[in-house]
Formats: sequence, structure tokens, C-alpha cells
Amino acid sequence: MSDIKTVIAPVNIAVIKYWGKRDEELIIPLNDSVSATLDTSVMCAKTSVSASPNFVEDEIWLNGKKESFSNQRLQNCLKEIKQRASVEKSVDNVFLSWKVHICSENNFPTAAGLASSAAGYACLVTALAKLYKVSSDVSSIARLGSGSACRSVYGGFVRWHAGVNPDGSDSVATQIAGSSHWPEMRALILVVGDSKKKISSTIGMKRTADTSELLEYRVQHCVPKRTEQISNAIKERNFAKFAEITMKDSNQFHAVCMDSYPPYVYLTNVSHTIIDLVHKYNEINGEAKIAYTFDAGPNACLYLVENDVPKVLYLIQHIFPSSSNNFVTGLSCNREPLSNEFIKSLSIPVQEKDSIKYVIYTKVGEGPTEIKDGSHLLTTDGTPVKTV
Amino acid sequence: MSDIKTVIAPVNIAVIKYWGKRDEELIIPLNDSVSATLDTSVMCAKTSVSASPNFVEDEIWLNGKKESFSNQRLQNCLKEIKQRASVEKSVDNVFLSWKVHICSENNFPTAAGLASSAAGYACLVTALAKLYKVSSDVSSIARLGSGSACRSVYGGFVRWHAGVNPDGSDSVATQIAGSSHWPEMRALILVVGDSKKKISSTIGMKRTADTSELLEYRVQHCVPKRTEQISNAIKERNFAKFAEITMKDSNQFHAVCMDSYPPYVYLTNVSHTIIDLVHKYNEINGEAKIAYTFDAGPNACLYLVENDVPKVLYLIQHIFPSSSNNFVTGLSCNREPLSNEFIKSLSIPVQEKDSIKYVIYTKVGEGPTEIKDGSHLLTTDGTPVKTV
Repeated sequence: MSDIKTVIAPVNIAVIKYWGKRDEELIIPLNDSVSATLDTSVMCAKTSVSASPNFVEDEIWLNGKKESFSNQRLQNCLKEIKQRASVEKSVDNVFLSWKVHICSENNFPTAAGLASSAAGYACLVTALAKLYKVSSDVSSIARLGSGSACRSVYGGFVRWHAGVNPDGSDSVATQIAGSSHWPEMRALILVVGDSKKKISSTIGMKRTADTSELLEYRVQHCVPKRTEQISNAIKERNFAKFAEITMKDSNQFHAVCMDSYPPYVYLTNVSHTIIDLVHKYNEINGEAKIAYTFDAGPNACLYLVENDVPKVLYLIQHIFPSSSNNFVTGLSCNREPLSNEFIKSLSIPVQEKDSIKYVIYTKVGEGPTEIKDGSHLLTTDGTPVKTV
Repeated sequence: MSDIKTVIAPVNIAVIKYWGKRDEELIIPLNDSVSATLDTSVMCAKTSVSASPNFVEDEIWLNGKKESFSNQRLQNCLKEIKQRASVEKSVDNVFLSWKVHICSENNFPTAAGLASSAAGYACLVTALAKLYKVSSDVSSIARLGSGSACRSVYGGFVRWHAGVNPDGSDSVATQIAGSSHWPEMRALILVVGDSKKKISSTIGMKRTADTSELLEYRVQHCVPKRTEQISNAIKERNFAKFAEITMKDSNQFHAVCMDSYPPYVYLTNVSHTIIDLVHKYNEINGEAKIAYTFDAGPNACLYLVENDVPKVLYLIQHIFPSSSNNFVTGLSCNREPLSNEFIKSLSIPVQEKDSIKYVIYTKVGEGPTEIKDGSHLLTTDGTPVKTV
């Protein structure tokens, strides 16, 4: 006898960046952040959870491989969900005493630096909430798994409030607007190859919080203003304003990495070429048509509206030639050729082949969803349906 | 009949960076800056100036080539020196009415991004001051030619005070300590090849002043504190402190470039490898033995004390192999091999050949000096001794 719940959850890409913690243990950030949640039909995590009196211990499988359950963040999430269920009296104590099995996978490469932990923990926590019938907001619990995971608990445009409480109880995500509010919004994720090993975001943000003198000003003055401005831009569907703030905040995040001691960088030459290309494209168009944003790695996420995608995809394929037959994945889209004159006016030379490895075309989408078609990742006896 | 004055003047490399003007016309900076003046025996500008009733117009030759005299900055420097001479009554009005001929050259490549305009304008203004017998401080006049030129008017360690007067009259350089105060101080300039065209410092600093939100905090809070700290470190000959502030300020300067809109970068992959190498070297040594600083380009200037130069030169030649027979120029120096174990512990792979084009080994030196051996660049009839 066992109960299985299966959930899929989205990745999210921040437009106001989270960088630096006020509390390392509780993963409480120094500043608010804002993101868009991306369509689960293109990229998602999928997690099945099950509890049973027959399970002898808590077990977890990630992407088909058995992993240790001793991970502190995982333990914290499970403990807090059970605690919440206990307070809400949503399930009985016997059910709470049963061991759990968890099986989770991403439909995109974990290593590509594409916010996989955010999707993963949002998925896990939502699945556990379903299992234990927790009905209150679980974004603060997802936060304990991976800070930005709290933003993947909601669809559309989401704000993670830093909060002021020492226990992090008000460090939660709320929705600014649903995905249907701005249905034309699209995202192109440009996956850039990177040979150099990079500093992890946990270590990077701690170093910046400890050493960057500029970070404090960013946290106190720049981010609060930008958070209000971009929330308004989203509400008003003002793309040019949205784009400007998004780009400025990405740049400032990478600036504080450079202001850290020792400094560290995530952007490569290819990343900088993408930045230059976007600014030139916007300049020639007389307004911001594309916004770039970069997380803790060289990959770009471009936000733009649907109408501009055919031209921009053409341009990307022109400037960044690929040897792949499957260069653009995700949503389908035509190409709209740009004139040689236009391309020449950008003065960005054609780059070395495969500088961009592939492109994921996606859109803003919904939050975590329970899968009720029975396609669980766990069998009824609590073992993975498939393993590698 | 003519009077010829010939002066040599040094370059300087800032340790607290000048970036951003309060007044574009008068070249008044937003913040104080600090630099070391480098030995003219290794790198210098040399300028001869002459005035004569026989000259029909003001003329100038730079590096053997006739140039236009209409350059506004050049005109401003000449006008101000004459004005000063007039106030000081140091020469008569007839002499002041004569046209001038100017001939100037650098003994190092102008294009290498090595502060050639600072040396050039310090040299020009000092030579003109000699010609017109101006005895007061001319750093504020050199400033009108190229901001950082005012720091090359003095030897040793120099502070450029931003000043508060609208006319820039208190935006002058003063000496923190002479070169003999810290005689062990050395500099290694690592000239890095750069294929990408870069934004000029004039345009870059204007963009940053106009768009970077972090610059204001840097100007108001970070630089004043650092200027005091590094002045004390210089006075106390505290290398570790000097190094830490130097590196942090270089990083912050490049951070505000990234925080500008659109952002721009001067550092290349090779620059970042140098940064990583210095931090690793310092970490393994348990204290800061080397300080890096980068201006508006990819070249590194490393400050270090004389005793460490043989080891550091060995290390640089190991990590950055060269095909040149003349890789290190300037002062002469032995190499002191480092153990394989030590080099391995740095975990910095040997880089592509000629990533660093060449190295200039120099030291902190004196300010501009009049050359009295008759080796003028102008003949007595006001024509260049040599042309290209």
C-alpha cells in the first residue's frame, strides 16, 4: 500500500538577480528578486514522491541514479513540509511516520547551468505538499532547498521578497502577474560552451557578500528601485522598460562579482559578443527589442516578444553558425531573413562555429502542476520505474 | 635666434583609479586618485620646445610626424602656461608673442596603451614651463592635456586631488612620498595582445559617469577611504596593505565599467589568468607579494618589491611562454627557479604561446627632468632633428 504523487515544475530566469544571503543556513537573501517562470512543456523537472509503511528508509533517485538522503537541504525541506502538515493536521501522525521515496529527473541537461536546482526543489516541495496535503504557501520551504526554487513555485512573473524576519518566514515568493497577462513574452536560452571551471554560486555569493563594497549599495539602493520599476513594467507590459532594467541588473550582478576579492567572472567572450549584439540590435531598431540576462555562467537568456523571434533567430544563426542539425529546440518557429545591409550595420563579425552550442526557444508559463495520468517515476512498491 | 628647452617625463600607473569627470572641458575628476611614477630610464616621453620671432606659426611634431596644432587640449595647455607666465611676469610680452615649435617622442610604443598621453602632456607642460620660466605648480595645466598627466608632474607616489573649485584650480597633484622613500618598489608591465577594438577611456568614463549607479557610491564612499588607507600604506611601506587596496581598486574600476549601460570590458582571458595567478601566488605565500592593476586595456601592471622579482619573472615566463628573445626589457634581473611542486600547487595551466607579448621591468622613479646635454629634438632653426 502506498500513495504516489507526481508533479512537474518549471525553471525560472531572474530579471532582478538574487546574489548574496542574509542567512546562509535558512537561505534568506539580501535583496528581493524578480523572475519569469518558463513553460514546463519545454523545460521541467518531474518528481514522484511516495510514502509507505513498507519503506524501511527514506530514499532518493535523481536522474535515474540513487543518491544519498543525507543532503541537509533535502532533509530540511522534508522536515519542514512534515512540520507544516502536522500544524495543519492535514494527514495523521501515522502517515507522517512512514518513510518516503523520491524519484526526480530533469528533461534538460543538469550541467548546462540552467537553474535545474530551482526546478528540482520547487518540484520536490510541491510533490511533498501534495503527498502530505499541505495547502499553505510552500515557497519558503522550496527556498530551503535552493534559494531561487521559491520563485519556481509560481507561474508567470514572480517576486521573491527578502523579508525581514530572522526565521525567514516572510522570505516568500508572490506572483506579480500570471503568464496569460503578457502572452507574447518569449525567451531564447543561448547555451554557450565553457571550458573554464567556474566558481559555484554558493561560494561566489558568499565571497561577494563578504568582500564587495558595492554590493551593499546595490542591495540598499539599486535593487529596491528596480524591483518596483520592473514590477510596474510587467504590469503595464512595457517591454522597453522591462528590457532596460533586466539588462542593467544582469550587468550589475556581474559587476559585483568583479568587485569581489578575489574577483571572479562568469561571462566569456561569447557572452560579451551576445551583449554587444543585443545593444547594437536595439540601437538600430531605435528601441529595446531584446533583453539579455546572464546567471552564474556564460549562457544568455534573451527575453523578447513573439513577433521578433523569427528575425532574432535568423540573426543568431547568422552570427553564431552551428554544425548541429538541431540547433534550436523547444517551441517551433520560422526564420525571417534580415537584409545584408542590416546585418552589416551591426558590425558584429560572424563568430567561430559552435560558439553557441544550442538554443532553447520557450515562453513564460505556469507553475508546478500535478500529473494525474499515472506516468509516475516510482512504481507502487517504491522503486524507480527506470534507472540508468 | 631661439631658445630650446628639452625635458623627459615619466609615465605613471594608478593604484587608485581615475574614472569619471566632474567637468569634461576642464578635465576635473569625480574622485582623487593615487599613482606611482615610473623610472624615466626605462619609459619616458621626451619633448623639446622652442620659441622664436622667426617662427611663422605654432607647429608640433609627434614621434617624427607633423601633427595639427588645432588640438583643443594642446591649445589649452599652451594658453594656460602663457597666462601663468604673464601673471608671474617671468618673461616679457614680446617673448610671449613669439610662436612655438614643439617636438615630442616616446621611447615606447604609443599604441600599447601604456599611459603615453600622461607622459606626453606632463613632458610638454614641464618643457613649456621651463621655456616661459613658470615656477609655480603646473600639474593643473598638465591635467588640461590629459587628466592623469598631472600625476606625471611629480616623482615617487603621487595623489591627484579632485578638488572642489569649479575652475579646477585646486584639482592638482601632490607628492605622497618620493621614490627614495620606498626604494625596493618595482613594477612589471605585462603587455597583452588584444585583437578586439576597445572603447576609449574618454568615452568609457563618460558612459560610466552617465549610467553606472554604482559609480556614485564608489566616488563618495570607497575611494576616499582607500585614498587615505593607501597613502598610509605608502608612508609605512606596508606592501601587503598597498597590494590589497591596489587590487581591490583595479577590480572596482572594471566593475563599474561592467555596471555601465551599455557595459564594456577591458580585461581579456589573459588578464583574468594574470589575476588568478597573482591571487594564487599570494595565497600560497601566505601574504600579498604581488599587486596587479589594470587600466583601460588588457595589460597588467604588477607592483612588487625587488627581492621577489627573480621568482616572479621565472613564474611569468613559465606560465606565459614566449617565442621572443627579448621577452623582458627594462632593468636587468636574474631568474630564480621555483620548484615544480610550487608551480603545480598554483593549478594555473601553461598558457598559449605569446599570450603575453613582452614584459617591461621598471621601478618607481623621479618626475620630469630637464635635459641639459644638448640632445634636443629641435634644431636651432626650429625643425625636428629627425623625422620618419
